[in-house]
Amino acid sequence: MTVLLTIIHVFGLITMGCGGLMSTSLLTSIFAKDGAMDAFIEGTAITLLLGALMFFSTLRATKKVTRQTGFLLVAITWSATPVFSAIPFLIYIPSLSFVDAYFESVSGLTTTGATIFSGIDNLPMSINLWRHELNWIAGMGIIIFAVAILPILGIGGMQLYMAEAPGSVKESDLPPRIAQTAKALWLVYAGITAVCIISLKLAGMNWFDAICHAFAAMSLGGFSTHDSNIGFFDSVPIEIVLTIFQLLAAINFATHFVVIRKRSLSPYREDMEMRGFLTLVLSSCLFAAYVLWDTGTYPDFPTALRHATFNLVTIATDCGFATQNFNQWPIFVPMWMLFLSCLSASSGSTGGGIRMIRTIILLKQTRLELFKFIHPYAIKSLRIGDQIISNNIVTSVTGFIFLYFMCIVILVFALLLTGLDFVTALSAIIACFNNAGPGLNQVGPATNYASLSDLQTMICSFAMILGRVQIFSIIILFVPEFWRK
Amino acid sequence: MTVLLTIIHVFGLITMGCGGLMSTSLLTSIFAKDGAMDAFIEGTAITLLLGALMFFSTLRATKKVTRQTGFLLVAITWSATPVFSAIPFLIYIPSLSFVDAYFESVSGLTTTGATIFSGIDNLPMSINLWRHELNWIAGMGIIIFAVAILPILGIGGMQLYMAEAPGSVKESDLPPRIAQTAKALWLVYAGITAVCIISLKLAGMNWFDAICHAFAAMSLGGFSTHDSNIGFFDSVPIEIVLTIFQLLAAINFATHFVVIRKRSLSPYREDMEMRGFLTLVLSSCLFAAYVLWDTGTYPDFPTALRHATFNLVTIATDCGFATQNFNQWPIFVPMWMLFLSCLSASSGSTGGGIRMIRTIILLKQTRLELFKFIHPYAIKSLRIGDQIISNNIVTSVTGFIFLYFMCIVILVFALLLTGLDFVTALSAIIACFNNAGPGLNQVGPATNYASLSDLQTMICSFAMILGRVQIFSIIILFVPEFWRK
Ligand SMILES: [K+]
Ligand SMILES: [K+]
Repeated sequence: MTVLLTIIHVFGLITMGCGGLMSTSLLTSIFAKDGAMDAFIEGTAITLLLGALMFFSTLRATKKVTRQTGFLLVAITWSATPVFSAIPFLIYIPSLSFVDAYFESVSGLTTTGATIFSGIDNLPMSINLWRHELNWIAGMGIIIFAVAILPILGIGGMQLYMAEAPGSVKESDLPPRIAQTAKALWLVYAGITAVCIISLKLAGMNWFDAICHAFAAMSLGGFSTHDSNIGFFDSVPIEIVLTIFQLLAAINFATHFVVIRKRSLSPYREDMEMRGFLTLVLSSCLFAAYVLWDTGTYPDFPTALRHATFNLVTIATDCGFATQNFNQWPIFVPMWMLFLSCLSASSGSTGGGIRMIRTIILLKQTRLELFKFIHPYAIKSLRIGDQIISNNIVTSVTGFIFLYFMCIVILVFALLLTGLDFVTALSAIIACFNNAGPGLNQVGPATNYASLSDLQTMICSFAMILGRVQIFSIIILFVPEFWRK
Repeated sequence: MTVLLTIIHVFGLITMGCGGLMSTSLLTSIFAKDGAMDAFIEGTAITLLLGALMFFSTLRATKKVTRQTGFLLVAITWSATPVFSAIPFLIYIPSLSFVDAYFESVSGLTTTGATIFSGIDNLPMSINLWRHELNWIAGMGIIIFAVAILPILGIGGMQLYMAEAPGSVKESDLPPRIAQTAKALWLVYAGITAVCIISLKLAGMNWFDAICHAFAAMSLGGFSTHDSNIGFFDSVPIEIVLTIFQLLAAINFATHFVVIRKRSLSPYREDMEMRGFLTLVLSSCLFAAYVLWDTGTYPDFPTALRHATFNLVTIATDCGFATQNFNQWPIFVPMWMLFLSCLSASSGSTGGGIRMIRTIILLKQTRLELFKFIHPYAIKSLRIGDQIISNNIVTSVTGFIFLYFMCIVILVFALLLTGLDFVTALSAIIACFNNAGPGLNQVGPATNYASLSDLQTMICSFAMILGRVQIFSIIILFVPEFWRK
């Protein structure tokens, strides 16, 4: 009972925050006279009111958050907040079903960026801003969740993050308290976003597009204000700016923070995740460009390199923009892009999937197994940098990765049961589960998720949430021991 | 140098065995006057001669087989023996390329049962017998490899097999020495095969078909003497007999041995792998039948159950017969069949893939992780039956499964690079790597592997060998430490 009160209390606060954010879209709507004013007035009023009701009616609740409360809060925040943020969509587009509005809203708040809207170019400014604000604020939340909360909950080996510092960031380099850490990360995130907005403006976007796409890039959300996405601009400078900021956003924000605080680039050099990520992604760009050129998809290598780089980076970082219909490329390239989306992004970034640090641990563990196989009596530990990674963490990591694959298998089979073709089902689940965005075939970059049935849409929404909370926070609710005591 | 001599010596013995086996097909050919006599005379002569040359020229070699020699022997046996066993194919069909003949030969000796031959019904009796003999003798070799040799090499957690006895078979229940174990298993295998032959004859096959299909069923090889495979017979009794014997063949042969020796069925009840396998496969049959009936693929439930059961069991056990073109079924069912082929078969059986025991350990480990997540300070071990499974074995098992997935990913991407479509590439690799047989689309049950290019055929041959030796024995050769000292 006290747990329930605490959860309602905190969730009320989050809901009020959502309402507060919505009011900025309301102001935009009033200012731009774009016709969505009513939707945002009603949306803001309902959200603020219900949020306040939840918050103030439970003032007596204890402020102490146990692990159990923590998991429940994470699950509820990511599944119930989208109900509120969907209100403006529902009011502005009366023909929109709740399932579709919820999907768009979940897609924003999980920074997936898959959309069911067509004719985005003609949507009111404020509605598009709201979609991108969802991306951006969620990105912020995810970074704080990853850096400050995940280690406390100890999800899938992420207790090693900070505590055991694989790579560059030592605990002592970060502010000691969650509130301070959060504030520091917020400043870094907002600061880089500001630089991104200005760079996009200089590269040729108007201010509105620059703000929206900087929000989408820094959160690795991938929403756009155009149906043809970044292809709309057909601009090399814009593609270069976005590529750079997407790569930055897929790096641990704690590393960025330490770089800024120390005024030294050495933390980048020491960040093993970042090194692995950049090596993998950039060499993949070259190879993909070679394949596209070799198969005659593009007439010359520079064109192939341009399109391979932008589209591969955006999928590998789980951002999910697009400039080309890569669904029509030789299948090796888009499949490789989806594969990278599963494992490239760093922990402490806004990307999704397994995360590079877990990939590295698994690779090193397998290498160690092969070594032990040859020298059965040798004693050798798994090391990252000069840290020994304990067996507990290794089993956490392998447990996480196994759950990750099991979830993909189960969700893909669920979609297959609804009658989707295999490539659509597999790519939709991978794209949603990694919070990347576009898939292939029926959900490819040239189309969107609108053609899915209600049941298929709900499965995809669930996949986005499950991936965003790193599986455990939802799965744990199905374990009987969780509810005992 | 001594290592090389020992390897040549043992491989010479194996080659002579191969020649000896070939002479039985030669006799068949003489007896049946089927026109393949020349092919078998030359094949037998070359094989026996080269085998004898290798064996007798290295008589001075040490008979002591180290771990290193063991791995090399396994790798060489499974990749070089098919060269000899391909000779009759090459001589009888002059238009056959070496790559294709090697594929057919590897397919036989790895008990995969994928074929590049069309017009099988019109092949000489002796050629068909030779294909099925390859299946059967390899099945025997695999069981001995799994029960007697794998535990010594300690591959992928299989040291627990027998040594730690997960399930029913205690070390003390089996004869103490490899030679005795091998002989006991050989008797069980040959005995059940004899019962299978008689049952198939009673069910309506002629003696030749009964022998060939019993060989294919007991080895889970899945070759047939007809292009339309078991669909040729269109007989419920034959399907029932084959289903039962395939299920038996996918159970640990050590369990069969103990059941026969103790004259008690209780070892079956205690065999956890078998319980998991039967529960999973039989409930999948019911569900698949429901889907086929619900989607109107078959007009009534009994027909759907008949076809679902036979085709699902044969793929799940990695046998790979077919009575229907399941490529045209709703995609959920054939994909689920391929998924089951990855994990259903028991250790110590002739099936392939991950094996049920590793699946069970991984599931239990993940369950344990979730428990530890809720009670971080609780101390709890992984148990199978009343045995505690040590951490070493758990990491071996997870290492194996990770390598398994990595191999599939790499091989699928290799096939995609050659231009195959995704479903063909994925299903071909899964079917070859698990030694199951038919895949989907271009390599589906109504067609065969003949349409693949030479490069694609070679990739599939490699996948079959890699899967058959449980990955490690090949992968280990690429680890630098293996070659040092
Ligand atoms: K995204
Ligand atoms: K087979």
